[in-house]
Amino acid sequence: MLSKSLNIMSTVKLKECLTHIRTQLDNVVDFWLKHSHDTVHGGFFTCLGKDGHVYDEMKYVWLQGRQVWMYCRLYRTMGRFCKPEILEAAKTGGEFLRKNARVLGSSNPWKCAFCLTRDGRAVKVQRSIFSECFYIMAMDELSRVTDDKDLQLEAEQMMEQIIYWVRVDSSGLGRPSLPGDVPTNSMAVPMMLLCLVQQLTEGREEAVTQKYKELGNWCVEQILQHIQRGGTAILENVSVNGEELPGCQGRLQNPGHALEAGWFLLQYSAMWGDDNLQKTAINKFVELPYQNGWDKKHGGLFYFLDVDHHCPTQLEWNMKLWWPHCEALIAFLMAYSQTKKPELLERFYQIYEYTFKHFPDNDSGEWYGYLTQEGKVALDFKGGPFKGFFHVPRSLFMCECILTDLLAKHN
Amino acid sequence: MLSKSLNIMSTVKLKECLTHIRTQLDNVVDFWLKHSHDTVHGGFFTCLGKDGHVYDEMKYVWLQGRQVWMYCRLYRTMGRFCKPEILEAAKTGGEFLRKNARVLGSSNPWKCAFCLTRDGRAVKVQRSIFSECFYIMAMDELSRVTDDKDLQLEAEQMMEQIIYWVRVDSSGLGRPSLPGDVPTNSMAVPMMLLCLVQQLTEGREEAVTQKYKELGNWCVEQILQHIQRGGTAILENVSVNGEELPGCQGRLQNPGHALEAGWFLLQYSAMWGDDNLQKTAINKFVELPYQNGWDKKHGGLFYFLDVDHHCPTQLEWNMKLWWPHCEALIAFLMAYSQTKKPELLERFYQIYEYTFKHFPDNDSGEWYGYLTQEGKVALDFKGGPFKGFFHVPRSLFMCECILTDLLAKHN
Repeated sequence: MLSKSLNIMSTVKLKECLTHIRTQLDNVVDFWLKHSHDTVHGGFFTCLGKDGHVYDEMKYVWLQGRQVWMYCRLYRTMGRFCKPEILEAAKTGGEFLRKNARVLGSSNPWKCAFCLTRDGRAVKVQRSIFSECFYIMAMDELSRVTDDKDLQLEAEQMMEQIIYWVRVDSSGLGRPSLPGDVPTNSMAVPMMLLCLVQQLTEGREEAVTQKYKELGNWCVEQILQHIQRGGTAILENVSVNGEELPGCQGRLQNPGHALEAGWFLLQYSAMWGDDNLQKTAINKFVELPYQNGWDKKHGGLFYFLDVDHHCPTQLEWNMKLWWPHCEALIAFLMAYSQTKKPELLERFYQIYEYTFKHFPDNDSGEWYGYLTQEGKVALDFKGGPFKGFFHVPRSLFMCECILTDLLAKHN
Repeated sequence: MLSKSLNIMSTVKLKECLTHIRTQLDNVVDFWLKHSHDTVHGGFFTCLGKDGHVYDEMKYVWLQGRQVWMYCRLYRTMGRFCKPEILEAAKTGGEFLRKNARVLGSSNPWKCAFCLTRDGRAVKVQRSIFSECFYIMAMDELSRVTDDKDLQLEAEQMMEQIIYWVRVDSSGLGRPSLPGDVPTNSMAVPMMLLCLVQQLTEGREEAVTQKYKELGNWCVEQILQHIQRGGTAILENVSVNGEELPGCQGRLQNPGHALEAGWFLLQYSAMWGDDNLQKTAINKFVELPYQNGWDKKHGGLFYFLDVDHHCPTQLEWNMKLWWPHCEALIAFLMAYSQTKKPELLERFYQIYEYTFKHFPDNDSGEWYGYLTQEGKVALDFKGGPFKGFFHVPRSLFMCECILTDLLAKHN
């Protein structure tokens, strides 16, 4: 009887969450549909002020790719977003990328710019793989809604280039080889590649899954190397042999990144039915970053921490950013949905409470991205060079899916 | 009578300032003498925690060069610092730089690294001119205390290379030429070059002064292009024709940088007896950045501001950093000493009060570098990748010199 009433309470609370999250997702999608579309040149404005006004016209390739991906994912998998307006925006975003993202005259035809002028001329190129990664996410997901096999092929070809840069020879990225520059396993790289493996294989035929299986396993192995200090910390940068690096770089913790890796691992473990990986993901990449990264005084997750409690050198180390909280929501809810351990749901509610109390702007819509340690809004824009239509809607979308699934099983 | 008693009061206050600043300078020099010297490999540790412990061994070339320069300047011009310990440290720092700063195997023999391992192996190279600039400052000042003409020659040769990169062809710096990347006049470049012109010519024979005269005038012209919006704002980045650039980059204000440019211009105007330049420097590069950059609610100078009052995209925009306050102290005191306008001295006292109330650490010595908008310590280290033995001692040194001079004339 007690257990049944607890169950009813828990169902009521989950339903409340679901309703709230669904409303938030609608609100956030509306905000970007209304304010971000460049109807002249295609693509998206992402520098949007508090009320949605465009305060800068620069187009960041990461954010262009992410917005195309998110629109397509919503269109393809959530009935109420299967609207021509969303498909059209995704297509013109995809066209803008295909036309402009790759750097003309570059020594490598696959190298993409980091940012472009409004009309698509390259402004800056990073010597890393991430513009290309988000290009792949965009093209693969777009190919799924348009059934355009060329896009899928292009995504897979660019993926081959990225794998070459990461696993064979990175010199084509343009970073000079320097005697003091030790090769590093940065969490971002295997995380991003694992995300792409899941993107490229999801629901595709067995041959495709097999093609990327070895890469997926390699990514997992690389991610697990970041478990350090006898299993008590996830460190953001380790040596290519999985050893701790000296100095600030080696001691750096990025709890939001670890949590994001956590739910990537949880998805992967579910796909392959790997219970050990699930356990490691939850213990080390979900619970640990929360324990080490939560601000016990003011609430919220720190952006950066030093594992030896030195002060990080990043000026924004103690700020509360929207995206680690987005990742934490997904990570804890997914961990709960896979295990049904009540303490994981409790943690989800704790993060949920902090997140929805501090980040959404109930007046003008969307979320603030950057708070002080104390939780005050420090930067009041809704989009910027690194905040686009991605972490917030992806988190709301994932949480809505998981909650819907949980409640369907409850009934 | 009233005027005389005011004068006495003012003299008392100036003397108090001088005493306090002299004590602070002694304290800061002691801190770096005690904690920063690498007696094994030469050069300086600059990542020093609250109590001076080394939390990272990376050696940043900007900071190595600046520390050599500052030690030499103190040794050469301030009697109480004319100590063998300081000269020795400067020399070993200079040797470390000469041995390690230039990137071996680089396509250009003058290109310097941005940071080095403890034992001097290059870790990172920036595609800009600043490592080289601080190398020049170090070598020229070191040549003055050691009377080593080779060092002076090396400084002048590297200067030729920098002038070539800035005024003729920047492609050797390694930045790809991109169609959307508009050539920009960034305040930092002409400011830094003007500083080097003053460094290389100060007290040298007429031929040297004449050699750099055209460059000095060009720097002044480039700096004055940053006066924008009908003379109501100093913008950090303008087009090479002196027009405002679009977007965030164009609207950016960096009050500390403008104030630093201000006192560089004041020095230059004094050298050439240019009253118009003096007036412009005070009105536009000293008073204006203060008016636009001072936080009327919490006190202190903002790090970045948008001239149209959009929120800057730099996460640290509203933080209070030590160095803009160091520059403001020099700028207002120098402006007062050149004009004797009492309102400039009043402003100096206002900044003095904020600065000495918030930045020095009276327990462990040296200054904190990074405060929240409200003036709370946000990062508690005394040295880091961008905070070395430079802005604090240079400001204290310059202020001590100016105050001593003012008081000598009062008596």
